[in-house]
Amino acid sequence: MIQARMEQMGRKAKEAARLLMLASTEQKNRALQQMAGALVAEAEAILEANRSDMEEGRRKGLTSTLLDRLMLSKKRIEEMAEGLMAVAALPDPVGEVVEMYRRPNGLEVGRVRVPLGVVGIIYEARPNVTADAAGLCLKTGNAIILRGGSEAFNSNRAIAGVLARAAAEAGIHEGAIQLVDTTDREAANILMRMNQYVDVLIPRGGAGLIQTVVNNATVPVIETGVGNCHTYVDEDADLDMALEITVNAKCQRPSVCNAMESLLVHEAVAAEFLPRLSRVMGDQGVEIRGCERYREIVPDVKAAVEADWETEFLDLILAVKVVKDLDAAMEHINRYGSGHSEAIVTSNYERARRFLSGVDAAAVFVNASTRFTDGFQFGLGAEIGISTQKLHARGPMGLKELTSTKYIIYGSGQVRR
Amino acid sequence: MIQARMEQMGRKAKEAARLLMLASTEQKNRALQQMAGALVAEAEAILEANRSDMEEGRRKGLTSTLLDRLMLSKKRIEEMAEGLMAVAALPDPVGEVVEMYRRPNGLEVGRVRVPLGVVGIIYEARPNVTADAAGLCLKTGNAIILRGGSEAFNSNRAIAGVLARAAAEAGIHEGAIQLVDTTDREAANILMRMNQYVDVLIPRGGAGLIQTVVNNATVPVIETGVGNCHTYVDEDADLDMALEITVNAKCQRPSVCNAMESLLVHEAVAAEFLPRLSRVMGDQGVEIRGCERYREIVPDVKAAVEADWETEFLDLILAVKVVKDLDAAMEHINRYGSGHSEAIVTSNYERARRFLSGVDAAAVFVNASTRFTDGFQFGLGAEIGISTQKLHARGPMGLKELTSTKYIIYGSGQVRR
Repeated sequence: MIQARMEQMGRKAKEAARLLMLASTEQKNRALQQMAGALVAEAEAILEANRSDMEEGRRKGLTSTLLDRLMLSKKRIEEMAEGLMAVAALPDPVGEVVEMYRRPNGLEVGRVRVPLGVVGIIYEARPNVTADAAGLCLKTGNAIILRGGSEAFNSNRAIAGVLARAAAEAGIHEGAIQLVDTTDREAANILMRMNQYVDVLIPRGGAGLIQTVVNNATVPVIETGVGNCHTYVDEDADLDMALEITVNAKCQRPSVCNAMESLLVHEAVAAEFLPRLSRVMGDQGVEIRGCERYREIVPDVKAAVEADWETEFLDLILAVKVVKDLDAAMEHINRYGSGHSEAIVTSNYERARRFLSGVDAAAVFVNASTRFTDGFQFGLGAEIGISTQKLHARGPMGLKELTSTKYIIYGSGQVRR
Repeated sequence: MIQARMEQMGRKAKEAARLLMLASTEQKNRALQQMAGALVAEAEAILEANRSDMEEGRRKGLTSTLLDRLMLSKKRIEEMAEGLMAVAALPDPVGEVVEMYRRPNGLEVGRVRVPLGVVGIIYEARPNVTADAAGLCLKTGNAIILRGGSEAFNSNRAIAGVLARAAAEAGIHEGAIQLVDTTDREAANILMRMNQYVDVLIPRGGAGLIQTVVNNATVPVIETGVGNCHTYVDEDADLDMALEITVNAKCQRPSVCNAMESLLVHEAVAAEFLPRLSRVMGDQGVEIRGCERYREIVPDVKAAVEADWETEFLDLILAVKVVKDLDAAMEHINRYGSGHSEAIVTSNYERARRFLSGVDAAAVFVNASTRFTDGFQFGLGAEIGISTQKLHARGPMGLKELTSTKYIIYGSGQVRR
């Protein structure tokens, strides 16, 4: 029963994708604008659906953080609409000829950017993901199948319904934006294995969700998100700069994946830097968990345990370790890091270069905060997630990362000898 | 027991990858040259190992085709060595700065090409894959874990051993080239789920092998190979050209994935084209399976059944269908094709363009044989396989497709506001 419904959804998405692949940029942009308008026009219905999710959430005893993520307001709906308008204004990557060259036999071989086809998004509490992901996929000519968290079921259904109807009015096939209309877990399991209909799955949410998708999907997955990020303060660091970067990376928004979780400090500057760090972090309400050598310099600091080096705190907690040199820092990062974002603060040219090439992560910074790993900050104009895998996309994913390419070959009768 | 051995292998590969990532092009090329030399110098030992595989194969009753794929000769070993020398001569994609730009806040954001890390290859009978894949991975700074077919176990072990020793003599870590040293299926299952050590899996072989890997792997997979390829002869085709392309696509090497399996012919040219086709294909020993309308024109042709449209014959068999127009042809292709290689023969500008944009495949040809879908023919200089998925790589994969990128960011103290 669920199997049949999911397959029907898959077939419809595939059909929509075949048409969307050929849609003009103008048509897609018009649809995005109508979708934005419809969200605002039908805000009251969306808010009502959201209120019933919120009530249910309170009854179930969701934490206030979760409830805040779940909650919609007129302002939040307007922000979703603005997001869609911003995506409409971005250049369309589809159709770009990435390269084209002539072979000795006269064949002209080119690669052109095309949509992926059908994209599945499996996500958690925040209902704004519904609009963001639908907008990015429509812009790139992909059909989308959305599978949101059960807490936001009514909100997501209302949003997806409004978007699909508005898109249809702009001439987009109704299979282009679909939401899995059941909270049954079986539906997600089926989605993860619909290889004949779904070209890629992008999980967005916590480590548990991502692990479940990676372990169960046969459809290709783009892994996003877990960030155990480090900053290394080199012996030749400008310590004022190091302090400012460190505070920013930890405190500006501690709950996100590009926030710093561990700090490594060269032993030559530890005695000068760590007392200052303790003071400033204390002012910010950050709990420091220091190594033995930290505690020799600042005795009242809490002791770090092995698990602290592995933990993505997503909170005002910072693990700090004094290291012998750059090599020890890189070894620590390559051992404990999650390959997300890593930074060095140094004025030394060679060590900056060694860090950039020796650290294996999606984004490696010199003298800047890890908080910059973000599609908007990198100038992509949009972001569907941050990939921590090496296949297809690495780091912030914008519109281009929602496309594939195909070879197009112009011949004049060539055959192979 | 096997679990522990596989994990040790994974750890060694990871360690090797960390060093290989930093190896100079010169060092990698020197290793490739030594590997080539060692293959030739130790040809006798490799041939002896191969003889025992051949004996075992004969005893097990392998088909002559399989035995031919399995068999090595002095000449085949020399060809492997030449392949390694050719890879050494190619430009190194690692280190290429794909793009670099300055953000308004002064951050300089770049993307640089880096190795994938650890690549797992799961393949079948032909032992030359061992040398090809090891060479391509070493050139791109990736450690490789090879899992060959049980029929070629001794040959593969001999080849991998020679290559690993030669690479080690050139200063490459011994974990860079490793072969799974058991034919136990459990080892392959473990390899497919070693996400902490393996960055990507590439299956090379028949549809069964590929399906097994896609269904069981949690490590990201690049799907290769199945090719149900079509040629469409348009009403405005030059029929001499159409015939030449058709014969080439079907007959030049029928056992490979880019050979044509089905031919679609516009009804307006069917009466003229099909009798000529029957004659020429008959001369080539090709069995034609025609639709009803074909059989009206050429009555003694065998009737095609539904399964023929779905089959990758890999043999001198061709399914032929008369179609109403371009749309019917594209509909057929998008329904039955495997997204590998598709061709149109036409002199009509608009229909050529419509075919190029409307057919969803890795390679779409106008007026050329599908047999050109090949890394060497496309000028990539090498080929590790042909991807039929849309993620990461599509079509022939050369050295670039064995790399990822990372963001490198040069700052001067920037923090996020």
